Amino acid sequence: MTGGGLFLTFEGIDGSGKSTQARRLAEFLRTQGREVVLTREPGGSPGAEEIRRLVLEGDPDRWSAETEILLFTAARRDHLERTIQPALDAGKIVICDRFADSTRMYQGLSRGDLRGLVDQLHELMIKREPDLTLLIDMDPETGLSRAKGRQGSEERFEDFGPDLQRRMREGFLGLAKEFPERFRVINGNRDMDSVAADVTDVVMQALR
Amino acid sequence: MTGGGLFLTFEGIDGSGKSTQARRLAEFLRTQGREVVLTREPGGSPGAEEIRRLVLEGDPDRWSAETEILLFTAARRDHLERTIQPALDAGKIVICDRFADSTRMYQGLSRGDLRGLVDQLHELMIKREPDLTLLIDMDPETGLSRAKGRQGSEERFEDFGPDLQRRMREGFLGLAKEFPERFRVINGNRDMDSVAADVTDVVMQALR
Ligand SMILES: Nc1ncnc2c1ncn2[C@@H]1O[C@H](COP(=O)(O)OP(=O)(O)OP(=O)(O)O)[C@@H](O)[C@H]1O
Ligand SMILES: Nc1ncnc2c1ncn2[C@@H]1O[C@H](COP(=O)(O)OP(=O)(O)OP(=O)(O)O)[C@@H](O)[C@H]1O
Ligand SMILES: [Mg+2]
Ligand SMILES: [Mg+2]
Repeated sequence: MTGGGLFLTFEGIDGSGKSTQARRLAEFLRTQGREVVLTREPGGSPGAEEIRRLVLEGDPDRWSAETEILLFTAARRDHLERTIQPALDAGKIVICDRFADSTRMYQGLSRGDLRGLVDQLHELMIKREPDLTLLIDMDPETGLSRAKGRQGSEERFEDFGPDLQRRMREGFLGLAKEFPERFRVINGNRDMDSVAADVTDVVMQALR
Repeated sequence: MTGGGLFLTFEGIDGSGKSTQARRLAEFLRTQGREVVLTREPGGSPGAEEIRRLVLEGDPDRWSAETEILLFTAARRDHLERTIQPALDAGKIVICDRFADSTRMYQGLSRGDLRGLVDQLHELMIKREPDLTLLIDMDPETGLSRAKGRQGSEERFEDFGPDLQRRMREGFLGLAKEFPERFRVINGNRDMDSVAADVTDVVMQALR
């Protein structure tokens, strides 16, 4: 809980309910009188949003995996400096929809075995880990069908198909084992209210 | 001389004549029947030019020094993969107007003492050094007045003034001592033809 605040992230495969749960958690905590900053990656600060556009628009082969990792790291550095850290220093709760664990999975797994490079770059330029990471774990088929049902899906990462989603799920569960102190796995194969109840429980425990 | 080609860079303070000499060298080598790719940094490939615009346009405080280094490294990675390395693999001579040494100086010196970070990032994501670096060394006052006389100076790095230019000159001479195998120092305090004659000599020697 560096800087007085609490840094929470949501992670999980596409369509697992991260954005839904992040929004609901923010609303709940505000009703409890807490100051909350709800943000997301890639993006989350004006500069990082510009970098996000540069990475996500256009031809998928436009950037190599390595260049893409550098751009995401630049965006994350900006997001951390301009949005996350100032809020934590002011004692607020920061809820971030995806963070470095998503890069570890998506760039580290799906575009070649670059996990080592992702980690070294993180260690050099970012360092910061969340205080608590809520992994919404779920069956990949359900996730894919939910993500497709949703409007305005600009992200090209959703085009990778069920096999990659399965590997991603395993990858996220592997990360939860790698960082057990900060990861909490939530069963996402349920209605939104049940998932939200578990999320609230875990966060209230961390706040105590 | 990796990949059959030859990778040449021009370095030096603002207004020292890098772009002028790079262009003249390219013309000369072409009259000798050589295949030459003339390129520049930041930029030099379509993706890298977009990143260049993102970094150089707008408020100077828009990016922290660390984020700026990440963006320049992303641009360099793209430039290397899409422009420089393919040309070297095809046996061409690549002449690049500024490269990693400029980042070592400008980001490493002018925006805090970040040389160590610049070097670690280079080692992780770029690795490649030029076969030959032509440092156009000159008196900082002359450089500044030349740079100001020139049209279309978009770069905000020129606004740093004579004191920084002096430290930059010393910095570049220090780099030449650090990497004596690839650096050649050319006296730029002379008319263009005399400078060009020295440049040609040094390059023809490297090509033999
Ligand atoms: N528990 C749930 N049961 C049924 N539908 C849900 C549930 N949670 C979210 N949804 C719906 O599934 C879709 C995807 O949810 P959401 O956008 O929150 O997922 P996400 O993890 O943020 O996806 P992405 O990774 O693509 O950003 C939305 O239409 C949302 O309303
Ligand atoms: N040897 C020289 N004598 C006099 N003027 C010169 C000489 N070399 C270049 N110039 C002039 O000085 C100005 C700066 O030269 P040039 O653009 O080649 O420098 P540069 O090192 O590329 O600068 P920058 O770092 O700002 O890109 C131009 O107007 C150019 O015509
Ligand atoms: Mg989402
Ligand atoms: Mg120039």
